Amino acid sequence: MRTALPAVVLLLASGSARADEGMWLFNDFPSDAVKKAYGFAPDQAWLDRVRLGSVRLANGCSASIVSPDGLVMTNHHCIRACVEDLSTKERPLLETGFAATSRDAEEKCAKVEANQLVAITDVTQAVLDATKGASGADYQAKLKAEQAKLESACAKGDASRRCDVVSLFHGARFHLYEYRRFQDVRLVFAPEFQMATFGGDPDNFNFPRYGFDAAFVRLYVDGKPAATPERLKWAPQGAKEGDLVFVSGHPGGTERSQTVAQLELQRDVVLPFFLLSLAEYRGRLSEWMKHDPERERVAKSRLRSVENGLKALRGRREALVAPGFLDGKREEEARLKAAAPEATRGAWDAVAKAVDRQRALFVEYQLKEGGQAFQSDLFQYARALARYAAEVKLPNEKRLREYSDAKLPALKQQVENTAPISKDLEKASLAWSLSKLRETLGADDAFVKKVLGKKSPEALAAELIDGTSLADPAVRKALWAQAGKPQTRQEDVLLAFARRVDADARAVRTRWEDEVDAVLKKNGELLAEARRAVQGATGYPDATFTLRLSFGQVRGWGAVKPLTTVGGLFERATGAPPFVVTPRWEAARAKLPPGTPFNVATTNDIIGGNSGSPLLDRKGDVVGLVFDGNLPSLGGRYGYDARDNRTVAVHGDLILLALERVYGAKAVADELRR
Amino acid sequence: MRTALPAVVLLLASGSARADEGMWLFNDFPSDAVKKAYGFAPDQAWLDRVRLGSVRLANGCSASIVSPDGLVMTNHHCIRACVEDLSTKERPLLETGFAATSRDAEEKCAKVEANQLVAITDVTQAVLDATKGASGADYQAKLKAEQAKLESACAKGDASRRCDVVSLFHGARFHLYEYRRFQDVRLVFAPEFQMATFGGDPDNFNFPRYGFDAAFVRLYVDGKPAATPERLKWAPQGAKEGDLVFVSGHPGGTERSQTVAQLELQRDVVLPFFLLSLAEYRGRLSEWMKHDPERERVAKSRLRSVENGLKALRGRREALVAPGFLDGKREEEARLKAAAPEATRGAWDAVAKAVDRQRALFVEYQLKEGGQAFQSDLFQYARALARYAAEVKLPNEKRLREYSDAKLPALKQQVENTAPISKDLEKASLAWSLSKLRETLGADDAFVKKVLGKKSPEALAAELIDGTSLADPAVRKALWAQAGKPQTRQEDVLLAFARRVDADARAVRTRWEDEVDAVLKKNGELLAEARRAVQGATGYPDATFTLRLSFGQVRGWGAVKPLTTVGGLFERATGAPPFVVTPRWEAARAKLPPGTPFNVATTNDIIGGNSGSPLLDRKGDVVGLVFDGNLPSLGGRYGYDARDNRTVAVHGDLILLALERVYGAKAVADELRR
Repeated sequence: MRTALPAVVLLLASGSARADEGMWLFNDFPSDAVKKAYGFAPDQAWLDRVRLGSVRLANGCSASIVSPDGLVMTNHHCIRACVEDLSTKERPLLETGFAATSRDAEEKCAKVEANQLVAITDVTQAVLDATKGASGADYQAKLKAEQAKLESACAKGDASRRCDVVSLFHGARFHLYEYRRFQDVRLVFAPEFQMATFGGDPDNFNFPRYGFDAAFVRLYVDGKPAATPERLKWAPQGAKEGDLVFVSGHPGGTERSQTVAQLELQRDVVLPFFLLSLAEYRGRLSEWMKHDPERERVAKSRLRSVENGLKALRGRREALVAPGFLDGKREEEARLKAAAPEATRGAWDAVAKAVDRQRALFVEYQLKEGGQAFQSDLFQYARALARYAAEVKLPNEKRLREYSDAKLPALKQQVENTAPISKDLEKASLAWSLSKLRETLGADDAFVKKVLGKKSPEALAAELIDGTSLADPAVRKALWAQAGKPQTRQEDVLLAFARRVDADARAVRTRWEDEVDAVLKKNGELLAEARRAVQGATGYPDATFTLRLSFGQVRGWGAVKPLTTVGGLFERATGAPPFVVTPRWEAARAKLPPGTPFNVATTNDIIGGNSGSPLLDRKGDVVGLVFDGNLPSLGGRYGYDARDNRTVAVHGDLILLALERVYGAKAVADELRR
Repeated sequence: MRTALPAVVLLLASGSARADEGMWLFNDFPSDAVKKAYGFAPDQAWLDRVRLGSVRLANGCSASIVSPDGLVMTNHHCIRACVEDLSTKERPLLETGFAATSRDAEEKCAKVEANQLVAITDVTQAVLDATKGASGADYQAKLKAEQAKLESACAKGDASRRCDVVSLFHGARFHLYEYRRFQDVRLVFAPEFQMATFGGDPDNFNFPRYGFDAAFVRLYVDGKPAATPERLKWAPQGAKEGDLVFVSGHPGGTERSQTVAQLELQRDVVLPFFLLSLAEYRGRLSEWMKHDPERERVAKSRLRSVENGLKALRGRREALVAPGFLDGKREEEARLKAAAPEATRGAWDAVAKAVDRQRALFVEYQLKEGGQAFQSDLFQYARALARYAAEVKLPNEKRLREYSDAKLPALKQQVENTAPISKDLEKASLAWSLSKLRETLGADDAFVKKVLGKKSPEALAAELIDGTSLADPAVRKALWAQAGKPQTRQEDVLLAFARRVDADARAVRTRWEDEVDAVLKKNGELLAEARRAVQGATGYPDATFTLRLSFGQVRGWGAVKPLTTVGGLFERATGAPPFVVTPRWEAARAKLPPGTPFNVATTNDIIGGNSGSPLLDRKGDVVGLVFDGNLPSLGGRYGYDARDNRTVAVHGDLILLALERVYGAKAVADELRR
């Protein structure tokens, strides 16, 4: 699944483009090249229409507006947490699916924020002016201050507006993205988890594929469906082999322009750390929830996320260690360096030195600040509340980035959300991550002693989770409102804990930002300059979870055909999980023409974060719904290989067919056709 | 813990030695160098006496004979499986420990085989003559045939004699090791698992340390204690800081002479594969056994092994990715290659090509032949029985290596052993490993389809484990006896399964042996020749789980002192697992002088397989019991670093003290003092 994973390192600018390669900026699309290759290219009106029809889900997904009444299409896995939060033991929506019988029956997703990109402004000059001549902590402070200033000036304190300054080409360009922000998003339709994830982990990132990973939500404003005239239209016919297709969405992060030193750090330190952690957590979680329906209900979705992340990172690692890959990067870098302007050549060594610091700080940073030692939603609330109370007293530009005025509405929504919390799962997860803290730093480490004292991880986790009242959204809401004011009552045990470990977390974060982050950003400018001098100005920036457009065509690879069919689904079913077809699909089987396309593979260049993107034809109409890539696409993090990198989408024809004949959701289908 | 892990790649010869470095052959000990450094070196009588007092446990450990009546000292973790096998729900010996009140009360360890090295013969010329001019499959066949011939001629069909041809210096020298074989080994004394592993996984491979990882067994011959006049004596006083000390034991495997291509394969493919598998299995197992005393009883020891392996491999990987390490190896290799005789220079490329094959075959080999897809003791029995029935019909020299006449007694003991089997654990483990097979090769893979058909891993595992009768040792014994004869009754379901997957397993093994193994062995000769030509004849071969002697001294590193004390143990105890002191030790506390040394760190160069080795003073008397190394020692796989690589042992004084004052095992203590 192509949800964005947390970006673990900074992004650098990329080189020149090859066939179908590229996650292009909407204001810098290579129309000439596309026209040459495919005899067609979008014009400005096309680009504007598709941009406004595209939606970003703040949790790391993409989506699209598909009706004038605010109907939004995305993947089931993008709003799975919502389906889960709306479920109860008696109403297990992951299992049964959900279809609102009327607009009144649409149910609010407590944690979903949707963003529609209304304007892009180039603010490069302002940022460069503000940071000129600075380095290290000074650079970091000035950059942060300027970003906060620009964002505040744009948002003007209006919570329905979201403004983000984005660094592109690794600090060489800065754009200000202005979004319309929707925080009232309601669930319209979701299929059964089993059909969204048919084939489970074995089929994830594989193709041929049979996933019905589709869902619909609706944007609301002032309690009413949002008016969205700028919607995308549904194409009368889905994609066929050889068709030119576009994907408009939000690729989360690529590292195609990293230096060799940075890639080696990924291979040797970063990826192994996360992989080993996820592998063990997967083992724990899958066994923890087995044979216990209630535990399965509360943890099923998380397990899927863990397995998805594990597979994605594994694919990345394998791309990095593939024979010849890093040697190729090494040669490319040597050539670039040799041809680069004198003034930029020191950048590679500076980056290598920052990487050495990164290597030294990485584990400590991840444990203390990255949250690896405290894997608990309640702890995250506690930390957010503790930090908010401290940060809100500071002037906007001095705060931690995520507490700047422009970011607060999203954070507030997260903290106040009413999704239920399983204390059982919280305890298991926190105890495990505390044990990893001790294991990783050793029982004799001062921070470990400070955290655990003479308690076992299990005992401490139980004490904190059983003792906290933060599971109650009303308590969190009240604490948010009182933040910065003198507290009268006894402090919550988990809040006190979060406060107690915060100095250590902030300390390592400061070192990280000053010694690693600032150096990489600063030298990223130089590297981008070197690249421009040698390769020219064309190219697309590394992915930044901002809107991009990719082009490609419907195409298989090797012996693999680009389309699967409804008939293939029923052939693949074994009756044993994860290859089970739900009773509803079994019942509808006779009404489903076996030749109907199911999933489709295309050559578009996407990455995690593109989940939920619309697949568009040359008119800009919807012909499918992107939800995944194939295994070779996982290496797309570091480079696009046209031979076998493929995007995987639910076919547009199937979506209409299933809505009508499997789910009886005729109203949604009709709305799509309007 | 320093048990030998399965060797995953071939071993190469090492370079010249540095201070305290080296796992030396008993027939090639650097006496002059040791004398120069320490003013003392063992003479031939010393070496012979210590060799005969040293014991190898066939499961991957070391030990020593410490009384004339066959008393053998080793680590608790080396005979933990025996303690577990002798346990029942009503008599949980891992928890309570075991102390035989008389010789009659000593209980047999069903799976333990002990070997005493009685002779070493150089057979290099015979092997080189037999394989001259051959390569690939031909070389492999000729080498195997010659080894089988030499071993059979040595063992002469006498099951009490074990003969192994060992390749040293990566194929440059071959020695025939003749052992006296003991298959009747009985448990005399074992402490509580909790004290043997005090500090659990957090403290494993750490120092300061407080592990009482000691145990005693006795060798029996014809139902009576073996007469062992060649025992090692107990030193009246244990080791002190600065003392010269020796370790005689069986290091399992090092890779200090691997080429850079081989080390990169370890870093990129081999170690990540095992690490990820172990991490997930650890998560599964620890959750599976939680809150269920019976499950905890049957799986506790396995979890400890998994965690130990995980930590050991993690340390190895970290050594390989440490800044500068591989660069150093690369430079060393370039220098060696430049100075090497012309005729040997092609060897590096040949090895690199074999490594490419290894990379391509590795995962398939591990899954199908290496047993990763079928993690079940019962499956291992089934495979052994199926293969034995097929192999026994072939002439000795044509068989798979482990079915040659010389190896059969050990295999037979394994197959017929009476240790209990938990079908519950077997099902969990097999189902998980079958799911990994599907995950790794994909649901569309032909072998996966052959194995699973339309069944889920859980269903297939349940069918095989519930359906088999191989859990009954008598059934296995009968099948072994009937092997090769026509079978009349319905075949066992698991045996049939093992037979069904065997052709695929053998096919990948053949490719592996011919395309990887044979090329590496063959070119290993050339590399060793190059090294001899450039560096001279001195040096010790990479570890091969054969007897070696290392020298060093009692010494800490950095701020760490080399000795811990009984007082320190009680200070470190928190009352929460794994930092719990058992009631028996608590009760004895007043009788234990707090200054008594507990564990001791030394500079000896050891590796997994050395677990259970005696720590000896210059007289060759016992002053401690090796059970671990520190974290930096894990990099010892690839090179010895005198600055911080340390061996960790139980102090000799503590062993006597605890036997008498904690366990009331006065008879054992007296026997040691005899």
